[in-house]
Amino acid sequence: MSPKFCSLLFILLVIISSFINPSQSRKYQKHKPCKRLVLYMHDVMFDGHNTANATDAIIANPTKLSSYKFGEFAVYDDPVTVDDNLLSPPVARAQGFYFYDMKTTYNAWLAVSLVFNSTEHKGTITFLGADMMDDATRDIPVVGGTGDFFMTRGIATVSTDLFQGASYFRLKMDVKLYECY
Amino acid sequence: MSPKFCSLLFILLVIISSFINPSQSRKYQKHKPCKRLVLYMHDVMFDGHNTANATDAIIANPTKLSSYKFGEFAVYDDPVTVDDNLLSPPVARAQGFYFYDMKTTYNAWLAVSLVFNSTEHKGTITFLGADMMDDATRDIPVVGGTGDFFMTRGIATVSTDLFQGASYFRLKMDVKLYECY
Amino acid sequence: MSPKFCSLLFILLVIISSFINPSQSRKYQKHKPCKRLVLYMHDVMFDGHNTANATDAIIANPTKLSSYKFGEFAVYDDPVTVDDNLLSPPVARAQGFYFYDMKTTYNAWLAVSLVFNSTEHKGTITFLGADMMDDATRDIPVVGGTGDFFMTRGIATVSTDLFQGASYFRLKMDVKLYECY
Repeated sequence: MSPKFCSLLFILLVIISSFINPSQSRKYQKHKPCKRLVLYMHDVMFDGHNTANATDAIIANPTKLSSYKFGEFAVYDDPVTVDDNLLSPPVARAQGFYFYDMKTTYNAWLAVSLVFNSTEHKGTITFLGADMMDDATRDIPVVGGTGDFFMTRGIATVSTDLFQGASYFRLKMDVKLYECY
Repeated sequence: MSPKFCSLLFILLVIISSFINPSQSRKYQKHKPCKRLVLYMHDVMFDGHNTANATDAIIANPTKLSSYKFGEFAVYDDPVTVDDNLLSPPVARAQGFYFYDMKTTYNAWLAVSLVFNSTEHKGTITFLGADMMDDATRDIPVVGGTGDFFMTRGIATVSTDLFQGASYFRLKMDVKLYECY
Repeated sequence: MSPKFCSLLFILLVIISSFINPSQSRKYQKHKPCKRLVLYMHDVMFDGHNTANATDAIIANPTKLSSYKFGEFAVYDDPVTVDDNLLSPPVARAQGFYFYDMKTTYNAWLAVSLVFNSTEHKGTITFLGADMMDDATRDIPVVGGTGDFFMTRGIATVSTDLFQGASYFRLKMDVKLYECY
């Protein structure tokens, strides 16, 4: 074996070392997700009459603790599209719940499962946590996935793209997955 | 040190490389969980009279958005057994909530914490997300664990083993853990 | 290249091997979190009159299934402090929900997002799952984080530090993060 070959071995060793994840502090490239999906969910509130169009229903009314709907709890099954048009063909459903939980402003806590069942994607992505609605964009942790998104984790950056009082809102979701299997 | 030994070193290097997880795309053996538990949870609905037997109570009634219980919300503390017999000795409890969230069929979103406190297992496993009840089997992400299941992740494949109207259902849970610590 | 150098290579190889995480069974040092936060959340129940002080409101009343509040569901936005004094300056908010789910004792299922927005920390930590209130301390899995706590996982060990009937409780949270990015 030549000295050259041994040097090559050493270089290989250094390269491999740089790939290793020490268990206590793994560094991900925050700006380089392994998968990224930009999607819009369209939420049409049920008002007692719009059964055909509604996708979201309140199951607990707001409490008297504040005038910002503190305690209002809703569950939904919303269409998800790749652009911001409610009438575009849905590529997924968004299913879950949210509630308002702040006295001084509109603020929510939400859980969203994106359910894909198309030729392009099959499986689910679930994210949940505090949703500080006053911020233009909010990061929500992606805690798991199934199917094409088996065991995934990441961050969903959401923004309220449009808010039409108590009847309709549109949430832009920039889903960045940092663990792909 | 002989050239032979250096060659051996090189082979070792190659083998080790194959074990390394690059952070952006880790491959798990999808069909080889590090731990697997097949369990049944038994859910007896509270009807106002069966206090002794009931393990599940509705806390929000269905809305008028659909005839598929859209918005009905229930919380439960169900016995968990290793076979499908409600009267078998429980090996764990299943605690959590579920709600129905679809207009056109029965469809749920659920959160389950399996609570073990026996000589065999101590600790918890939590899975949650969309539960497409029309599918024979549904994958739900396992998002965390404690005790014997410290920091675990995986997939719970659930199926409605038996459904007796509004009084009883049995869920088969095939819990596959892919991260064991 | 000297035999000495080849020996060095071998030693390096051994060191690197010890850092590698085989994907099926990663070992963390359970007693050595990469980050640890000890915090207190203060929960003041809304009684219909204490709008100024209350931080928690019941949105679904207990069912008649038991006398241990089975089914009572509450949402909250609680101040979080570094010591056990309600009047200390808050370092975060705790936002989420909990409900009672046992017939024979007080037992809960809870979801907590710690929301930090100070010079010291910006971001969120979310933990959720079964909360066996009869145990002096309970481990709840940390399932995700954002901002300074990007992609984190771990265990929150909670204990009911003080419980004043239906008006106030204080939860001590020992949040141990084992995955830091």
